[in-house]
Amino acid sequence: MGKTFTDLFSKNRVEAFSDGVFAIIITLLVLELKVPHIVDRASQGELYRALAALVPKFVSWIISFLTVCIIWTNHHRLFSMFREIDIRLFWWNANLLLWVSFIPFPTALMGDYPSNPLAVAFYGVMMSLMAVSFSLMRLYIARNDHILHIDVNRKEFRRGTALSLVIGPLFYLAGAGASYVNSYLSFAIYAGIAVYFVFPHATRAKS
Amino acid sequence: MGKTFTDLFSKNRVEAFSDGVFAIIITLLVLELKVPHIVDRASQGELYRALAALVPKFVSWIISFLTVCIIWTNHHRLFSMFREIDIRLFWWNANLLLWVSFIPFPTALMGDYPSNPLAVAFYGVMMSLMAVSFSLMRLYIARNDHILHIDVNRKEFRRGTALSLVIGPLFYLAGAGASYVNSYLSFAIYAGIAVYFVFPHATRAKS
Amino acid sequence: MGKTFTDLFSKNRVEAFSDGVFAIIITLLVLELKVPHIVDRASQGELYRALAALVPKFVSWIISFLTVCIIWTNHHRLFSMFREIDIRLFWWNANLLLWVSFIPFPTALMGDYPSNPLAVAFYGVMMSLMAVSFSLMRLYIARNDHILHIDVNRKEFRRGTALSLVIGPLFYLAGAGASYVNSYLSFAIYAGIAVYFVFPHATRAKS
Amino acid sequence: MGKTFTDLFSKNRVEAFSDGVFAIIITLLVLELKVPHIVDRASQGELYRALAALVPKFVSWIISFLTVCIIWTNHHRLFSMFREIDIRLFWWNANLLLWVSFIPFPTALMGDYPSNPLAVAFYGVMMSLMAVSFSLMRLYIARNDHILHIDVNRKEFRRGTALSLVIGPLFYLAGAGASYVNSYLSFAIYAGIAVYFVFPHATRAKS
Repeated sequence: MGKTFTDLFSKNRVEAFSDGVFAIIITLLVLELKVPHIVDRASQGELYRALAALVPKFVSWIISFLTVCIIWTNHHRLFSMFREIDIRLFWWNANLLLWVSFIPFPTALMGDYPSNPLAVAFYGVMMSLMAVSFSLMRLYIARNDHILHIDVNRKEFRRGTALSLVIGPLFYLAGAGASYVNSYLSFAIYAGIAVYFVFPHATRAKS
Repeated sequence: MGKTFTDLFSKNRVEAFSDGVFAIIITLLVLELKVPHIVDRASQGELYRALAALVPKFVSWIISFLTVCIIWTNHHRLFSMFREIDIRLFWWNANLLLWVSFIPFPTALMGDYPSNPLAVAFYGVMMSLMAVSFSLMRLYIARNDHILHIDVNRKEFRRGTALSLVIGPLFYLAGAGASYVNSYLSFAIYAGIAVYFVFPHATRAKS
Repeated sequence: MGKTFTDLFSKNRVEAFSDGVFAIIITLLVLELKVPHIVDRASQGELYRALAALVPKFVSWIISFLTVCIIWTNHHRLFSMFREIDIRLFWWNANLLLWVSFIPFPTALMGDYPSNPLAVAFYGVMMSLMAVSFSLMRLYIARNDHILHIDVNRKEFRRGTALSLVIGPLFYLAGAGASYVNSYLSFAIYAGIAVYFVFPHATRAKS
Repeated sequence: MGKTFTDLFSKNRVEAFSDGVFAIIITLLVLELKVPHIVDRASQGELYRALAALVPKFVSWIISFLTVCIIWTNHHRLFSMFREIDIRLFWWNANLLLWVSFIPFPTALMGDYPSNPLAVAFYGVMMSLMAVSFSLMRLYIARNDHILHIDVNRKEFRRGTALSLVIGPLFYLAGAGASYVNSYLSFAIYAGIAVYFVFPHATRAKS
């Protein structure tokens, strides 16, 4: 059988599969927000306090929601540069999806134990590994640049890849480290990273 | 690299991503309907009473199901007017999806505590914020109307946007306020809003 | 604004949305299969007995899995006959999806209380209402047959619709009624209905 | 009505439906990773031990994640060879999806009881049945090879089918059997199978 059936993947189906995973993860996150149990079912005061105690969970949820959106936009931007997808690229993409689909666990952990440094640092370390998995996919493409459309600037792509190997992971590791000072500082850093990447800026626009 | 790779999004992929989130949220809602535990496993009477006690959960589920369908139809109608999607529009859409994907939580809360005014009002406030997030997306488009197809009537679009900023949020806030009179009145108002939007009417048809 | 933006839906997006709901429901069903808790974690005998006690849950799961596949094939066949989708058809379809997305609840209920006639009859009644919701969609189309492609035989379509209003619902109601004789007879009938519809036969092939 | 409406399925919709199921299953797997409950919420030591106790769950999760990716690539490769999809092929595919969507259950069982030979063997037996269901679909195609594109080598396809009926199931059964020697040996074999299939090799490339 020829190359068509064995070595190349339809870009559309890999994109659809990845989009499916992104869309599912982003919505599964809400399942970690469990309705609190209160004893006096009609008491507004008790319900109010129970909801207020959930604020760290709401915050972790929003941070992770934004983060998955950011990964999706980067994924979308990257895939729009491809001419074709080979089986190795498929597995680098699968590696990224593995880390993305793990996100609900550290999110719930951080939301449940917001004042436990280990729980909060765990989130940052996992996010940093997720960012590395994205950069590894870029690295593979930079080294096999026949995958890229002819009009993608190879030099800028490699520069963007090198940058991405450093920036994302370092930011998250800084947030993780900060949890040993004050775990709410980490929350602020994680939120800051999300906001930083939501608003378009020069560095990212360059690739 | 050119504009193609950095500033514009493929409309199809953003639509598919949004549709994924809508479809997942609409089906995740059912996970909040938990099978009741009964002691005498063969007793029809006990099971009947346990199911009857779930009626508020069934009602909240149906209201939210219809609501997500309505958002989907509005989303579909809006996106059919677009020529292209830029990164800012992507984030206004992500903001809407954030509120949509939160829906299972207030739905479950209202279903669990149907006679607690705070739980029932919380639902209305969250729905009203969701409606606002939809209008904010419209507002962005009204101010950047190069996004719209050439044959979309700009004036009518702006009028529809202004209307949507008021009608939806006000209806839901009225429902939320009513919970302090009688929480079942709120259920009736929320259900009424859903039914009102299910049946096509002049206001909405205008855009 | 013209008809394009307000009254018609893109068939592809409605299909994709429906397919999303079908795919999610069919996979969510497995979440009702919970790993049993055993005291002696290394005991094969205890685990074996715990798994054996789950057999009614496995059986309900398989019946519902097949049923959702059957609905999907009928849905696919029906939608392949459409020229266009208007907003009323959208809502008849949403009504069907409401009943389909409810399926995990009666499935889990029947799996948890296999010897409780009410639980087993509830499954049949819900499935019968789901079947009715499918027929109602067909009925709307039969009365608005400009929706159908020109080469669909109208007369056969109406006959198929009339038949579908009777056959599916009756079969499921028979299964529900049988639970008051013996609940395992109902399991057999529900499984029989699924198997009957899996294998192509003359009646269905006619439309 | 003609053949178009009754006997053939749109390949795109069956693919999209299957991809939906794959994407959902791969992401649902993470729901089995539950945040541990610890008594002293701020204790890093207690949280560390609780997370360490979850290692078998993390390992089962990764093995199953990779396995679903592998099935997806094989499914993608197979479907790229089809000219059309008839209703029987739909049901062979549905049979495969049934086994695939069951995967979260044995994964969670093995992760919860990693030292219980029955739990670990159960995983292997279920995976082996899943592999058989894939081969049965190939077998149906081999016997109805008008389904295949004209340029697919029939002889190689049949040889690949025969091979697939033996290799996958045997590997998993070997892993299941090994659990009665040492359950961690089974983990190693299951992981080895996944890694073996991730890296492209001669046998598989042949079809």
